[in-house]
Amino acid sequence: MSTPPSLASGPEGPRALRPLLDTVLRALDEGARARGGPLPSGGPDAVAARMRDAVGDVLPDQGDPHALHSLVRALAENAADPADPLCTAHLHCPPLALATAADLAASTLNPSLDSWDQGPGAAELEALVTGALAGEVFGDGGGERRRTAPVTPAPQAAPPHTTTGTTPTPAPTPPRNPPSALITTGGTESNQLALLLAREAHGAGVRLVHGANAHHSLPRAAWLLGLPEPVVVPAPAGVLDPACLDEALRQLPGPHIVAATAGTTDAGLIDPLPEIAALCAAHGARLHVDAAYGGGLLFSDRHRAPLTGLDAADTVTLDLHKLGWQPVAAGVLAVRDPGDLAVLHHRADYLNADDDTEAGLPDLLGRSLRTSRRPDVLKIAVTLGTLGRSGLGRLVEQVCERAAEFAALVHDHPGFELYDPPTISTVLFRPAHATDAAVAAVRRRLLTDGRAVLGRARLDGRLWLKATFLNPHTRPDDLAALLKLVEGNTPG
Amino acid sequence: MSTPPSLASGPEGPRALRPLLDTVLRALDEGARARGGPLPSGGPDAVAARMRDAVGDVLPDQGDPHALHSLVRALAENAADPADPLCTAHLHCPPLALATAADLAASTLNPSLDSWDQGPGAAELEALVTGALAGEVFGDGGGERRRTAPVTPAPQAAPPHTTTGTTPTPAPTPPRNPPSALITTGGTESNQLALLLAREAHGAGVRLVHGANAHHSLPRAAWLLGLPEPVVVPAPAGVLDPACLDEALRQLPGPHIVAATAGTTDAGLIDPLPEIAALCAAHGARLHVDAAYGGGLLFSDRHRAPLTGLDAADTVTLDLHKLGWQPVAAGVLAVRDPGDLAVLHHRADYLNADDDTEAGLPDLLGRSLRTSRRPDVLKIAVTLGTLGRSGLGRLVEQVCERAAEFAALVHDHPGFELYDPPTISTVLFRPAHATDAAVAAVRRRLLTDGRAVLGRARLDGRLWLKATFLNPHTRPDDLAALLKLVEGNTPG
Repeated sequence: MSTPPSLASGPEGPRALRPLLDTVLRALDEGARARGGPLPSGGPDAVAARMRDAVGDVLPDQGDPHALHSLVRALAENAADPADPLCTAHLHCPPLALATAADLAASTLNPSLDSWDQGPGAAELEALVTGALAGEVFGDGGGERRRTAPVTPAPQAAPPHTTTGTTPTPAPTPPRNPPSALITTGGTESNQLALLLAREAHGAGVRLVHGANAHHSLPRAAWLLGLPEPVVVPAPAGVLDPACLDEALRQLPGPHIVAATAGTTDAGLIDPLPEIAALCAAHGARLHVDAAYGGGLLFSDRHRAPLTGLDAADTVTLDLHKLGWQPVAAGVLAVRDPGDLAVLHHRADYLNADDDTEAGLPDLLGRSLRTSRRPDVLKIAVTLGTLGRSGLGRLVEQVCERAAEFAALVHDHPGFELYDPPTISTVLFRPAHATDAAVAAVRRRLLTDGRAVLGRARLDGRLWLKATFLNPHTRPDDLAALLKLVEGNTPG
Repeated sequence: MSTPPSLASGPEGPRALRPLLDTVLRALDEGARARGGPLPSGGPDAVAARMRDAVGDVLPDQGDPHALHSLVRALAENAADPADPLCTAHLHCPPLALATAADLAASTLNPSLDSWDQGPGAAELEALVTGALAGEVFGDGGGERRRTAPVTPAPQAAPPHTTTGTTPTPAPTPPRNPPSALITTGGTESNQLALLLAREAHGAGVRLVHGANAHHSLPRAAWLLGLPEPVVVPAPAGVLDPACLDEALRQLPGPHIVAATAGTTDAGLIDPLPEIAALCAAHGARLHVDAAYGGGLLFSDRHRAPLTGLDAADTVTLDLHKLGWQPVAAGVLAVRDPGDLAVLHHRADYLNADDDTEAGLPDLLGRSLRTSRRPDVLKIAVTLGTLGRSGLGRLVEQVCERAAEFAALVHDHPGFELYDPPTISTVLFRPAHATDAAVAAVRRRLLTDGRAVLGRARLDGRLWLKATFLNPHTRPDDLAALLKLVEGNTPG
């Protein structure tokens, strides 16, 4: 009988991994050199041809011992590298080396967070980190610290009071349970869960009310969950308009869940959270804030002010694979009232039998809709612990500064038009007097040539180029080079 | 301005990663030695205390440069290691070192599969691998190769025919598009997507009909998607009973989606797929097969026969983090008619604007309900390519042999009762004459002492211990040791 291939863990694991990791590092290096820029050249057909050549037969009868090297090399050669300063299209951050190294430990140990006996330490680590992240969003007292507006009471989670007296004195306010958070695959799953919690709290008729500036995953989640057609509130200046929201909440029958955005995908704008929270309170609407992008500002004392009002939300989406420098996936849903999570409770005899739970084995199934679940929390914990709030805050400040500098360059250049000074780290700009078709064409030309990855956004009826700065290593001369590339490649 | 911490990719990435990977390997080694067994000793409270000590302040103001080492070490010390032969509770496999090494490249390059310009090579790799996996399930011609029963026609995806003649001759059968597959976070997401495709094809009234032996994620998905209360068909022998299914389909108003199981969680049994497929065809019901566990048998010529009929399904769940030796996540949903996937099409101007798609940029948003999405396909591709079908088949055969040997040990031991010879690699057994409470207690005792991780299952009205063999390195003396441990620790 042949010896099976080595396992990643167990006593021989580290020894087996070491040469394979050397192969991976070498292949990454070779692939990046072969690429020689922010993304491969030649466009989709050339990339597909190179990948087909590298892969050969996906599942051959006999294996090829060089597959690790050749596939990793091909993936690196044909990657869009977010660590390249000219790769600035999306909320697609370059991961920190230390977060990536931690992620290797997650893959190696392979704990699964659906039962304690598949990840005892990982389960506790997740509890600690999610508690801390929820505290960052809401304050440790469940939002008492910074709350600016009262919000809809969530379903009562504390044990019911029993009053034995006959005089109807008001029961003392029960101590608030600390807020909680779930780890998700990203903002999209967080938004889905937020709507699911709303549906379970208010019934399947709950209507999503969101700005025209909201992320596409919100209406998609409403469709997934079978909710009524969402109502789209205008966002003429790129942020949700409170007067329009007020009108929508007055005119439409409830119950409602309002979704506001802290960091829009197109322009990085932040909705007026205090006004929106006050309207939700006044109309008895539930409030969700999608802070997938902007949530990272919490780490910076200098930049967190625009998030005032965030703690009035019932649920908040964060995404540490954006302003948190994690490899995908590192999503979070912070939940102000942990009682809201009771609806996710789920029993499967093989994972959380009653007698096991009574005997003290933690029940993890209610922490996610997934069953097998990778500990994405490890890399997050390592990053928070290694950098601390000050180190993370500094990264946030660095990318915001780069964006401000790029905006200033655009502003001072007679050949370009700036949409607006950046709120976070996104800059929208366009060659002055260019047509929309020319704007789209310059982006595709740079993409096809492998010279720069820029995004696009349609605002005020025109198409803009989008540069999202998420790389703290980007230097001022990179910014000038990016602008020059656009200048030199705009048709017409 | 301070230098920001190193990034994982970019020209300096491999150099920055190397010492961090050394730290991770050292911490994994130290943690495993400190643990000294399949899982940590002391139970949940002791594990929680050790993790709290290691973590300290989750988000301190100033960072700690030793956090990577201390957290990885603590996670390793407090892990349930599936590479330990006495860790056999769940469908929680020990990942292959080569798959884990490949996963590091995914974290490093951090491609995201929501748009071509965030992962050009990864997008093509996923297309190649999912096509091959779908071909494994359905045959390359969409199930023509091995289909045994006709199935409900899925909604037509091919372009409509235009007939100009006046004689109503039957249109020629259009060539069938090859089957397709989606990469998911696991069987649970695959099952959700299967029900979503059914809902979109047949309307929100489509009723899930599943066996009492089906995975809990199926009824949970029906709840998520707002479908009617599922109908549970008895599975008195551990597999779905065709006569009961026939009756259910006759009596209940449709439309129906029947979910069969190939590899039950409790006993690893496979439902009678050809009979179920024939019933679905006769009643016009859609068929989904959850082969999260059993799907891996496809790789073995010796073991694939019990999957006959699988290719008659409309959708099939696979999970390569079970019989595929991948780190979580490595889920797959194979879809016979790729036209079924059209309902997942989704547009977001910043990711797949029409003019970009027309210009040839691949549109990826319809390949998942997630947006940012890690290329879990890389480790799968590396594993398939390195081992080939023969290598993977050998691993399947090795774990099935271990299970058969353990069942023989149990059978021959007067102090134990065997539930049944194993179908895949799961063995249910119990100390003869023990009470259910004693069976539960021995499992928890071994778990708390950190000596063995066994699962549990309630079948035939009694509680059984469950050993799921997924470790191809397990040796015959490990099997004897496991049985001895149970023998020596059963109370009463």
